[in-house]
Amino acid sequence: MKKILIFVSNGFETLELSPFIDIFGWNNIVGNKKIFSKICAIHDQLNATWNLTIIPEVNLKKESITLEEYDALVIPGGFGKAGFFNDIQSSELKSLLTHFISSNKIIIGICTGSLAIAINGFLENIPATTYLLDNDRYFSQLKNYGAVPIREDIVISNNIITSSGPSTSIDLAFYLLKLLTDDENVLLVKKNMGFLK
Amino acid sequence: MKKILIFVSNGFETLELSPFIDIFGWNNIVGNKKIFSKICAIHDQLNATWNLTIIPEVNLKKESITLEEYDALVIPGGFGKAGFFNDIQSSELKSLLTHFISSNKIIIGICTGSLAIAINGFLENIPATTYLLDNDRYFSQLKNYGAVPIREDIVISNNIITSSGPSTSIDLAFYLLKLLTDDENVLLVKKNMGFLK
Repeated sequence: MKKILIFVSNGFETLELSPFIDIFGWNNIVGNKKIFSKICAIHDQLNATWNLTIIPEVNLKKESITLEEYDALVIPGGFGKAGFFNDIQSSELKSLLTHFISSNKIIIGICTGSLAIAINGFLENIPATTYLLDNDRYFSQLKNYGAVPIREDIVISNNIITSSGPSTSIDLAFYLLKLLTDDENVLLVKKNMGFLK
Repeated sequence: MKKILIFVSNGFETLELSPFIDIFGWNNIVGNKKIFSKICAIHDQLNATWNLTIIPEVNLKKESITLEEYDALVIPGGFGKAGFFNDIQSSELKSLLTHFISSNKIIIGICTGSLAIAINGFLENIPATTYLLDNDRYFSQLKNYGAVPIREDIVISNNIITSSGPSTSIDLAFYLLKLLTDDENVLLVKKNMGFLK
């Protein structure tokens, strides 16, 4: 069995979270049936940037989790005005990142989720991307944190994977499924979800 | 201003809900800024098929909404084992459908969401699709409810739009954005979300 930990912040983008729930959910029906995801946060409830409120499975402020059980950490991005940058600077996320980095496990930062890795000091000298538009408002920050900015939609630097925005999240979730299983299993899940004819 | 009503059931698929939140959310930042969506349900909390719990904005069991304000009804699909078919047979959804059908407003049923329209008697003699795999388990039900089954991913029958599964939800949300705005606005939102280079 493999496990994915998803750290969700206030102000998250729903479309950057949902593929990691549903693609691994479908995998547990039609695919290898051996990968589970867990949604953690530092609140009892989270508000997405827009009108969605969710209840995370684990509030890290109240409950600890056994990090050794997890194979990958996923950080969906979000918008600052809805509280995203407060949550990603929490000591709880720093602890998660410290574990996944020191264990060379997979870390995926989507859109501004990549800045969550950077701000905590874990992208130094590492090629990475983030949201590419809005006059480089986010992209220019990568350099400030010592990362090597790459103007591409998905950047894979060994175990650290970053991406540019919501349009990448489905591809990234399938890529993670491939890393944890194999090509044949990915094709099976894609076919059953209608992504492949 | 235009408004979209999203009826979410227990057992919903997150990926069939999220594009309708985020694409219209982005539209309110970078696009025409005049379309709002509202999530309604018949519970205080909803469990997705997999590990996500959400709090809908309106529980129709406790609070009524002014249907005349809304321009479109969206029904994400879901899995029966998580309660989907109980919710779609509620009198509350039937009332919503009765209003949207009698006013010739847009209705979108994604995946098994299309069966929500059929089960309530509103797809008689109407071309429609639903989930196409699993030995026609769902597709064969369309005929039982008097619909005209069409084996395609998206079927547009005037104001009633049905689709085959999670892979269609992003396209459908952009299609709805086009119906409520125009092509130029859709291109702008797609570009800012990274769906168009």
